[in-house]
Amino acid sequence: MKAKVLILMGSDSDLPVMEGTTKLLTEFNIPYHMTVSSAHRTPERTLKLVKSAQKNGIAVIIAGAGAAAHLAGVIASHTTLPVIGVPIDSSPLEGIDALYSTVQMPPGIPVATMAVGKAGAKNAAIFAAQILGLNDSKIAEALKDYKKKMAGEVVKKAKKVEKEEFWKH
Amino acid sequence: MKAKVLILMGSDSDLPVMEGTTKLLTEFNIPYHMTVSSAHRTPERTLKLVKSAQKNGIAVIIAGAGAAAHLAGVIASHTTLPVIGVPIDSSPLEGIDALYSTVQMPPGIPVATMAVGKAGAKNAAIFAAQILGLNDSKIAEALKDYKKKMAGEVVKKAKKVEKEEFWKH
Amino acid sequence: MKAKVLILMGSDSDLPVMEGTTKLLTEFNIPYHMTVSSAHRTPERTLKLVKSAQKNGIAVIIAGAGAAAHLAGVIASHTTLPVIGVPIDSSPLEGIDALYSTVQMPPGIPVATMAVGKAGAKNAAIFAAQILGLNDSKIAEALKDYKKKMAGEVVKKAKKVEKEEFWKH
Amino acid sequence: MKAKVLILMGSDSDLPVMEGTTKLLTEFNIPYHMTVSSAHRTPERTLKLVKSAQKNGIAVIIAGAGAAAHLAGVIASHTTLPVIGVPIDSSPLEGIDALYSTVQMPPGIPVATMAVGKAGAKNAAIFAAQILGLNDSKIAEALKDYKKKMAGEVVKKAKKVEKEEFWKH
Amino acid sequence: MKAKVLILMGSDSDLPVMEGTTKLLTEFNIPYHMTVSSAHRTPERTLKLVKSAQKNGIAVIIAGAGAAAHLAGVIASHTTLPVIGVPIDSSPLEGIDALYSTVQMPPGIPVATMAVGKAGAKNAAIFAAQILGLNDSKIAEALKDYKKKMAGEVVKKAKKVEKEEFWKH
Amino acid sequence: MKAKVLILMGSDSDLPVMEGTTKLLTEFNIPYHMTVSSAHRTPERTLKLVKSAQKNGIAVIIAGAGAAAHLAGVIASHTTLPVIGVPIDSSPLEGIDALYSTVQMPPGIPVATMAVGKAGAKNAAIFAAQILGLNDSKIAEALKDYKKKMAGEVVKKAKKVEKEEFWKH
Amino acid sequence: MKAKVLILMGSDSDLPVMEGTTKLLTEFNIPYHMTVSSAHRTPERTLKLVKSAQKNGIAVIIAGAGAAAHLAGVIASHTTLPVIGVPIDSSPLEGIDALYSTVQMPPGIPVATMAVGKAGAKNAAIFAAQILGLNDSKIAEALKDYKKKMAGEVVKKAKKVEKEEFWKH
Amino acid sequence: MKAKVLILMGSDSDLPVMEGTTKLLTEFNIPYHMTVSSAHRTPERTLKLVKSAQKNGIAVIIAGAGAAAHLAGVIASHTTLPVIGVPIDSSPLEGIDALYSTVQMPPGIPVATMAVGKAGAKNAAIFAAQILGLNDSKIAEALKDYKKKMAGEVVKKAKKVEKEEFWKH
Repeated sequence: MKAKVLILMGSDSDLPVMEGTTKLLTEFNIPYHMTVSSAHRTPERTLKLVKSAQKNGIAVIIAGAGAAAHLAGVIASHTTLPVIGVPIDSSPLEGIDALYSTVQMPPGIPVATMAVGKAGAKNAAIFAAQILGLNDSKIAEALKDYKKKMAGEVVKKAKKVEKEEFWKH
Repeated sequence: MKAKVLILMGSDSDLPVMEGTTKLLTEFNIPYHMTVSSAHRTPERTLKLVKSAQKNGIAVIIAGAGAAAHLAGVIASHTTLPVIGVPIDSSPLEGIDALYSTVQMPPGIPVATMAVGKAGAKNAAIFAAQILGLNDSKIAEALKDYKKKMAGEVVKKAKKVEKEEFWKH
Repeated sequence: MKAKVLILMGSDSDLPVMEGTTKLLTEFNIPYHMTVSSAHRTPERTLKLVKSAQKNGIAVIIAGAGAAAHLAGVIASHTTLPVIGVPIDSSPLEGIDALYSTVQMPPGIPVATMAVGKAGAKNAAIFAAQILGLNDSKIAEALKDYKKKMAGEVVKKAKKVEKEEFWKH
Repeated sequence: MKAKVLILMGSDSDLPVMEGTTKLLTEFNIPYHMTVSSAHRTPERTLKLVKSAQKNGIAVIIAGAGAAAHLAGVIASHTTLPVIGVPIDSSPLEGIDALYSTVQMPPGIPVATMAVGKAGAKNAAIFAAQILGLNDSKIAEALKDYKKKMAGEVVKKAKKVEKEEFWKH
Repeated sequence: MKAKVLILMGSDSDLPVMEGTTKLLTEFNIPYHMTVSSAHRTPERTLKLVKSAQKNGIAVIIAGAGAAAHLAGVIASHTTLPVIGVPIDSSPLEGIDALYSTVQMPPGIPVATMAVGKAGAKNAAIFAAQILGLNDSKIAEALKDYKKKMAGEVVKKAKKVEKEEFWKH
Repeated sequence: MKAKVLILMGSDSDLPVMEGTTKLLTEFNIPYHMTVSSAHRTPERTLKLVKSAQKNGIAVIIAGAGAAAHLAGVIASHTTLPVIGVPIDSSPLEGIDALYSTVQMPPGIPVATMAVGKAGAKNAAIFAAQILGLNDSKIAEALKDYKKKMAGEVVKKAKKVEKEEFWKH
Repeated sequence: MKAKVLILMGSDSDLPVMEGTTKLLTEFNIPYHMTVSSAHRTPERTLKLVKSAQKNGIAVIIAGAGAAAHLAGVIASHTTLPVIGVPIDSSPLEGIDALYSTVQMPPGIPVATMAVGKAGAKNAAIFAAQILGLNDSKIAEALKDYKKKMAGEVVKKAKKVEKEEFWKH
Repeated sequence: MKAKVLILMGSDSDLPVMEGTTKLLTEFNIPYHMTVSSAHRTPERTLKLVKSAQKNGIAVIIAGAGAAAHLAGVIASHTTLPVIGVPIDSSPLEGIDALYSTVQMPPGIPVATMAVGKAGAKNAAIFAAQILGLNDSKIAEALKDYKKKMAGEVVKKAKKVEKEEFWKH
């Protein structure tokens, strides 16, 4: 099955965070390609990957990076595909630098920015699924199921926390 | 023509910022509905709008709000459509509060966050177009044209700034 | 005894923080209900809990949440009962995100925000007691006793720290 | 009619902000006393006001202050009445200093902190009404009416913003 | 020997930081009293200590506190002796809250603020010595010796770091 | 009368802020010298001024500077006289840079840091007076009078703000 | 005379800031080329300019940009010439976003970051001159003269500020 | 071989960070001197080192320091050689204080600021090499090789991360 989502990360040290993305894409049955490519250390490679993405069937690009996280912005400057950015907390500034570098894009070149770190990596997968689900009813269903499952898990955890009898709600 | 994009803003004072969104959607020829609905002051109204959005043909929802900007997150909790958030700098904290309230969504409920203020409002329109353009070749073309036009404008401005003869580039 | 205080937390991982609230409510002999309900993952459940709170005897609602902490604000949008918010430091931004998301509520919908983390969880219980104590002389007395006990503990600790003879004060 | 709410502000320059409080208390028909007293410049006066508050019928104290805003915390250290703090943006740090100085109270001495500046001043009045409304059905009704009125105003403003025909919602 | 410096800390958990102060005062041979007294939990005790300080021979007061660190400011509001504040990093905001609460004093009531945490505790002792040294030549000498000793230690450490032969400097 | 206080500022553009210092020193009848000397642009001049200060009768040095405000720290490195720092909000970072550069001194070299901007400039004068007042009963008296005058002004302003009859306090 | 310095700015709205650079380069008699090229809107043009810079005689590149300021980093990724970055305060976050996006470069790809805004633009010119001055004695002399001139101006301004007779220094 | 680069650090505790600088300078075959000298604790020693640097063959100075990191700025005030600053995260403010103290230099005295901590220490070496490489073709070659090696390592790591067959790029 051909990849629909391209996942780039700036460094292989970002892998433990970005695995939150791949785990959920797999759960939604969405094929992806994931690799390492730095905006700064391998700019040519990044360009080639981005420029060849669309004709290879990619619909959404997800980029995770830390510090002066330029990766998502650099990708967005070379494509009109939707680009999702995950700021990673890997510098002493604890992700604030990556957040500002990812979200504060100038008018014309949007990056859809997710939360800093692991929460953002998971949400990048869900957001990609929401985009693809607009034209793929299976993914749309999977998203609704996922939302129900999440709600169900909250209720289960709630039962454990509730120590006394509760009113009917 | 039926609206594809629903734009909600938390207060009518956000209108001067959010007009950056409507101007660009119009340029891309994308029909939209825009209204005011607060996460906090009209929670029921917000719910109804969100829950009826999909069956009325909406594919993407854009939410602009300031201060403890919950609007995009509240919308995202009630739909699996992609939700784009625009943090607005309308409190003494100058948009940092709106940015954190919009972007730091917990795992499971993504909000695609744009830059604070006017840059973000414009980019919300472009990002919505990028999503819709995946299955609409006219929008896809319009985005490519827009990107070229932007580049052309930069070159024009460059000519004015360049004071001395330049090398060939 | 019917619960007077409803405690909601966004995730069961917030329990170690929020137990600071229940421990003190117990000390003040104030009955409470505590459960998990997320503003984002179980919005309907949160609504039902809030809307049925008052008729089940709840007078004060305490909400603890981290990251883009919308829980207290969402609750406040659906009730005119006093809502107390506890921002929890559970994201890489270390609670600043939760603080801004909780405290920066727009005019019309207040959330009484406490300190970030464990200090805030304890103070939420005391503040709830201060509200209830306005019409319950036992709670009012318990608060005065608590204040004296705290002062007494400071004096005891002071004795250990004081290494040399002190002037009379 | 005897005052139920005591409003203190650290400086008369805070008056334009704190008038947001008095205007709303008047709308809710809640009698108040308002005066200037600084935690730092008139500590004795502040103490006397706080210590005599309860026996003069005060149920809730609201304190507005800027910079190293100690006023609400100092008040809270001398009473078990609920204290509401309004951080005011009157220093070059634009209210962040006042926010942290007001909200980060240590365990034992809560201050119910509102948003920075004018939004917070309004919400202090509403929150005081929410406390008093627990035992005063007129205030409770007034709060519900206020909430409806706010919602109604949002809908009116929405009508002006909506430019095209909308779906039924 | 009568104490010249009074050291107050808001909580006995601040002791490991504030021992940096006592160790240096001892090195400078300056007698001190140290105790625990909270601005919020024992306001009366704090007042009594401050008000009786001068007549008991105290010339300088040092206050260490974390979170909404009001201790130094409250002390300064009740005395015209010089007050030195040490912000302590004991909350999730890592000392920024304590720094702003200590340094941003309004005009009229200064607090001489030192660095956050252990560096600040040491410097509080040195600054107290600098004040007392204006009229005590032994302390003035001790300070000059301390400064030389510090410089000497840097040079010793430099020798270890220098790996290659250096130019004469 | 020989100057007791030396006031240095990094740039003549800091004068409108630092005049808050000289106005109060004059009110306390404390002779001073004020000049411009930059830590960075005139390092030699700054050194000479500092090194000759004590023998010319200076007891306290006040330094006001903005941006990477090194002036107070550089002075403190060359003297054992007490140095008071006033961070000035003259860069786009609005004084946070000057605050951190002034207050975060390493162990060994204290700078007594005041609030950012005009409040800090006034407090620098008062703090200098508090130091000098330890051995000058006239200054000590002037400080007590100033404190009373401030309190009196608060009470006057309070009268204007109080709109309704108040309880006796 | 062939340009030695290439100045790029992300938008022509950055010109009023970056003219601080050209004014000083002119004063140092250093030929430059200045143009507009955006990292995001004209990525290809930026690449071409950077890649052809060295063979056209450029030794140093200066880049000024605001918001998620990727320009300097993108340039640095394509050259081994020294790149100087000027963060510009043109977004609601007032330059903090541009500062973090410029300075927090990952290991391997340095950007020499200057202060935010106009101070940084001037210093970029001086720093470029310091680099070129290592092998150009005229520039080295010009820098020493500039340093003396600056010091002289401080002394002149000092004379105006000094109101009373001063000790010899 | 005579040192071309002088490395100063404010404290020997900065050594583990600054070894990132020496390791890379060695890799580029650039001779250096490294020692400890504090702006505050050994100001005279720092001056002497800086003033004698140029005549001893130093072309570039690198300064690493934490907290109120004045070291780079103080050096820059005494030389017209290029000065590179490395802000070190050694205080409770986690390097933000060191960053602002290093980068926010006033017009006239630039410091080329690198990223906070270890990334910055490595980049200081590379940036020094870029300066020296302008007139030393061996260093220029070494830099190009280093850039290729970095890119090669990214590609190697990419191969490990790529789990599925990829399109040709």
